[in-house]
Amino acid sequence: MLKPLGDRVVLKAEEEEKTVGGIVLASNAKDKPTTGKVIAVGAGRTLDNGQVVAVSVKEGDKVLFDKYAGREVEYDGEKYLVVHEKDLVAVID
Amino acid sequence: MLKPLGDRVVLKAEEEEKTVGGIVLASNAKDKPTTGKVIAVGAGRTLDNGQVVAVSVKEGDKVLFDKYAGREVEYDGEKYLVVHEKDLVAVID
Amino acid sequence: MLKPLGDRVVLKAEEEEKTVGGIVLASNAKDKPTTGKVIAVGAGRTLDNGQVVAVSVKEGDKVLFDKYAGREVEYDGEKYLVVHEKDLVAVID
Amino acid sequence: MLKPLGDRVVLKAEEEEKTVGGIVLASNAKDKPTTGKVIAVGAGRTLDNGQVVAVSVKEGDKVLFDKYAGREVEYDGEKYLVVHEKDLVAVID
Amino acid sequence: MLKPLGDRVVLKAEEEEKTVGGIVLASNAKDKPTTGKVIAVGAGRTLDNGQVVAVSVKEGDKVLFDKYAGREVEYDGEKYLVVHEKDLVAVID
Amino acid sequence: MLKPLGDRVVLKAEEEEKTVGGIVLASNAKDKPTTGKVIAVGAGRTLDNGQVVAVSVKEGDKVLFDKYAGREVEYDGEKYLVVHEKDLVAVID
Amino acid sequence: MLKPLGDRVVLKAEEEEKTVGGIVLASNAKDKPTTGKVIAVGAGRTLDNGQVVAVSVKEGDKVLFDKYAGREVEYDGEKYLVVHEKDLVAVID
Repeated sequence: MLKPLGDRVVLKAEEEEKTVGGIVLASNAKDKPTTGKVIAVGAGRTLDNGQVVAVSVKEGDKVLFDKYAGREVEYDGEKYLVVHEKDLVAVID
Repeated sequence: MLKPLGDRVVLKAEEEEKTVGGIVLASNAKDKPTTGKVIAVGAGRTLDNGQVVAVSVKEGDKVLFDKYAGREVEYDGEKYLVVHEKDLVAVID
Repeated sequence: MLKPLGDRVVLKAEEEEKTVGGIVLASNAKDKPTTGKVIAVGAGRTLDNGQVVAVSVKEGDKVLFDKYAGREVEYDGEKYLVVHEKDLVAVID
Repeated sequence: MLKPLGDRVVLKAEEEEKTVGGIVLASNAKDKPTTGKVIAVGAGRTLDNGQVVAVSVKEGDKVLFDKYAGREVEYDGEKYLVVHEKDLVAVID
Repeated sequence: MLKPLGDRVVLKAEEEEKTVGGIVLASNAKDKPTTGKVIAVGAGRTLDNGQVVAVSVKEGDKVLFDKYAGREVEYDGEKYLVVHEKDLVAVID
Repeated sequence: MLKPLGDRVVLKAEEEEKTVGGIVLASNAKDKPTTGKVIAVGAGRTLDNGQVVAVSVKEGDKVLFDKYAGREVEYDGEKYLVVHEKDLVAVID
Repeated sequence: MLKPLGDRVVLKAEEEEKTVGGIVLASNAKDKPTTGKVIAVGAGRTLDNGQVVAVSVKEGDKVLFDKYAGREVEYDGEKYLVVHEKDLVAVID
């Protein structure tokens, strides 16, 4: 199991141009956000006062995120992306 | 439904040069702000002390925002922009 | 009505070189501040501790501000500038 | 009257190379500080906790300041400089 | 013994392309994260309020980390990497 | 008298290559620290919480400081340097 | 005596390639950390809340530090390095 650290989120990226709950990535997707599914979330972000703020999305959420953010990883033969919470744009429900 | 995260706001951008409540975008709109309607707002911005400050605009507001800010998304066949609150310049009422 | 957001201020810029309360913009006004009248002010700046600090100028004040700051907008046929409070240099009274 | 905002200070710059209380600006005054007299001071700097810290110089003080700091303004036929407190190097008394 | 300081972590890097708990580093591993084993962890990160936040991984954990982060050291004939906690992407368990 | 502001310190710089309490500036003094004597210190540095932290050196101390830091000033025919406390490296006693 | 200021540490750098408690600096030591002995430590780092956090190493410790950090000084005929605590990577014991 991939357990992301801090405010990171593991995503299963959707294929481009496929509609996900109505989201179509326009062709000139220069820096258009991409969609994906949340696989796992970290414990959250530690603030200057030591408080930990939980990640605002949960496993199974469909999300829109910045295409060029995060790190690509292959795990058990599957490709995943690990992004920081700040790179998540919206939840699609 | 597109639910923006953090202090983000989903906008329906107005066409340029059309007057919106009297706002005309001058022709040499190099970096002139653009107008749009608020479709949805995030939960707000988390401060260093853990407090969440609500977004200062609400659904339905007409706003002026920085033209080059935000991400463009197509959802259910409609084009939207997702911007951060800091990119909103003024409310037009 | 244009309601500026956060610590922004809507200004009606004065013409250059005209004296405003004795202020003359020297010819080589490379980056000389410019003068203008305050039309509207935002709610103020939110600090890290959540406190909102009111803007230190009010409607009707004559101000000196950094010439290259802010965004230009046309509203009801009039040209305005929307600047952040930090771009205001002094009040002229 | 020019009322500077925040932690700004209005100065009447002294002519270079003239001794002011013994201060001589060396010829190769590439980035040597310059001297001037304090004409007016702002309310002070607002800290992250909302506290306002008064400016540490007062009207009439002779000061040494960073030559390339601040904005030049002409007011009632006189030239002034408006600088931030951080650009003041020392008081000469 | 190598005792890392602050929020640093000493890692024993795994060879590339070897699967570690299912993690395969894709060939065009331009900036793909790499895997390794935690050998030692520092006391933690000191926050602005003086509180020390412990490192979120422990000795023996298998981790994914940013390939270009950290410093390489040879100790008792073995090669190690010393990274900051922020360069750790996920724990693989 | 030169009264430095904030966390600044007025120094009388020593001539290079002269030993000061055993300190010799190596010839290839590309960015080697230089030595000097403390002439006057400012009130100290104001922190985000409004507290003023006194400068950690006092008049008469011999110090090592970053050669390219600070401003050069001539006062009553003598050359001085005004530096920020952060540019002081060590006290030589 | 050299008394470092703030969170600085005076080090006696070891010669490269010599093993220090098993540490060998690999030949292509592009930016490999170097080893050294702690000679003196400063009072510590002042946080935003005024608290002083002591330096986490003590006189006599053997440390690994970033090779290009700090300032070189000669004192009583000996060469020393003065670095900030953040440039110390690990203690070797």
